[in-house]
Amino acid sequence: MSSIMIPSPLPSPTQDSEKLKKAFQGLSLSHFLNLYILGHREANQRMKICQAYQQLYNESLIDRLKSELSGDFGKAMVLWAMDPPKRDAKLAKDALKKKGTVKHLSVIIEIACAPIPNHLIAFRQAYCSLYYCSLEEDIALHVDQPLRKLLVGMVSSYRYDREEVDETVAKSEADLLHDAIEKRNLDQEQVIWILSTRNRFQLKATFNCYQQDYGKPVDQDIKDCSDSDFATLLRTAVVCIDSPEKHFAEVIKSSVNGLGTDESSLTRAVVTRAEIDLLKIKEEYQKIYDTSLLDAVAKDTSGDYKKFLVALIGDGKLKWFG
Amino acid sequence: MSSIMIPSPLPSPTQDSEKLKKAFQGLSLSHFLNLYILGHREANQRMKICQAYQQLYNESLIDRLKSELSGDFGKAMVLWAMDPPKRDAKLAKDALKKKGTVKHLSVIIEIACAPIPNHLIAFRQAYCSLYYCSLEEDIALHVDQPLRKLLVGMVSSYRYDREEVDETVAKSEADLLHDAIEKRNLDQEQVIWILSTRNRFQLKATFNCYQQDYGKPVDQDIKDCSDSDFATLLRTAVVCIDSPEKHFAEVIKSSVNGLGTDESSLTRAVVTRAEIDLLKIKEEYQKIYDTSLLDAVAKDTSGDYKKFLVALIGDGKLKWFG
Repeated sequence: MSSIMIPSPLPSPTQDSEKLKKAFQGLSLSHFLNLYILGHREANQRMKICQAYQQLYNESLIDRLKSELSGDFGKAMVLWAMDPPKRDAKLAKDALKKKGTVKHLSVIIEIACAPIPNHLIAFRQAYCSLYYCSLEEDIALHVDQPLRKLLVGMVSSYRYDREEVDETVAKSEADLLHDAIEKRNLDQEQVIWILSTRNRFQLKATFNCYQQDYGKPVDQDIKDCSDSDFATLLRTAVVCIDSPEKHFAEVIKSSVNGLGTDESSLTRAVVTRAEIDLLKIKEEYQKIYDTSLLDAVAKDTSGDYKKFLVALIGDGKLKWFG
Repeated sequence: MSSIMIPSPLPSPTQDSEKLKKAFQGLSLSHFLNLYILGHREANQRMKICQAYQQLYNESLIDRLKSELSGDFGKAMVLWAMDPPKRDAKLAKDALKKKGTVKHLSVIIEIACAPIPNHLIAFRQAYCSLYYCSLEEDIALHVDQPLRKLLVGMVSSYRYDREEVDETVAKSEADLLHDAIEKRNLDQEQVIWILSTRNRFQLKATFNCYQQDYGKPVDQDIKDCSDSDFATLLRTAVVCIDSPEKHFAEVIKSSVNGLGTDESSLTRAVVTRAEIDLLKIKEEYQKIYDTSLLDAVAKDTSGDYKKFLVALIGDGKLKWFG
């Protein structure tokens, strides 16, 4: 469900590296536009370009991009050029450094709910190798209870990755969630354990069961029950597991809403999901807000930043500069 | 620190497979002894033999071993021939099936305290692929609180894997452990969090600090404080992190002690540690019990089982049957 378009035939990583080097040596915008080729390569192709570039010119492409580019465009391009597990490690570190407000911490929930369990492992490994401590240690350092135990539980999960559902478990755990919501006792161990351990299909069955038995979606009931930070993060976890496209449609909507744009959230949503489910996010955005995600982003951004996001969102209209 | 001896030059996996096949086709003990060649191959060499055997004869070597061999020797050989993460997954599953007595559950603590964080990940992955649910789900199904939260915490860890110690943290967490022991409040979240998250070097510093400040080793104080199942498992975790060789020396001692032998514990300790730290365990055994581990095992076992364990413990005397 990737939204990016890959040229055919695909230039070799060496050819791409040579074009990038030329772009760095030139000064005009048209040269920089060549950089967009990084916007039309999948993650493993980009990693090969990074390696080829390092070998050819004995410098880090990421560092060069950091020094050459600035502003929102530069930040977005650097994030795009990074290896996904390292990118997520950087996003998590940034979130923790920002004194752990609930909006930033939801980034960690997003990453922890990645549908591929091995990505979460690669992310924890990258975190250790980049920041010389485990993610869990950093969470404990920056985040108080009860948010801490929710975050640690979520990032420590290694979910069974096959479609295996036990309807009896779904029913009993839907009841347990309802009981916790009714008693406004959301941060109990059992709730965290269910959210951070059960496989995605099992949890979707539990959420379905909840809606059937109690009339409203569980994320709605959590929202109505409390506006505490814990409830907000718990709801994020539910939505990220049940429908990540809904979560990211909400993130993009709130980042372009009102006066000014929240560029860091917008960049994160578009860059990290471009190769995962951005096509689904576009459909969901259209469904919820009855407007086009591409139009919304294009209306709220400008210049190279706008062109880059539009290239990632994939309108099929961008001129190919390769 | 492996105790097994590898022949030089090393026969190819195909040559090894052919010898194994011949051994299966023959009936005399001398043919079976050829199987001992599996006792002189490292884990990755054994995996290659398994692959070569499967390709050459279109049958699983593990399954063939299971059907050909019996008794303690058969069990030990099958365990030895398995891929280490799958072997640990099987040991954990067996432990959970045995109605979760504390003695069996300590096997899961042993595995979770493996010094290589990536082994723990491979073990969790193997568990999912063999048993169609996550290890954490199975723990919750079979084990009650508070043991459950200790076990889930331990198996979910991904410790930072470099020698990095913060002495201030060591001091404050030693105090916290002492406070928990004094108040007989061992199962509090913070204690579990420390044991399941901090890197091994940090924890060793904390345990050192504890002994300096409070006069006794923390594992001794836990033992004196309570003989509950939780205290027993918590102490196992402390010893497995601080000195795995001490833990396994204790396991072997109690398995050969008294009337009769606890073969499953003895097999587990020798087979799973042969390639990790069995030489250190031998030294520790000699130090604590003032007797030779090899003699103790040889005295308490017999026949093929004895020969196989002695080969793994590595006395250097076993005739090479290759």
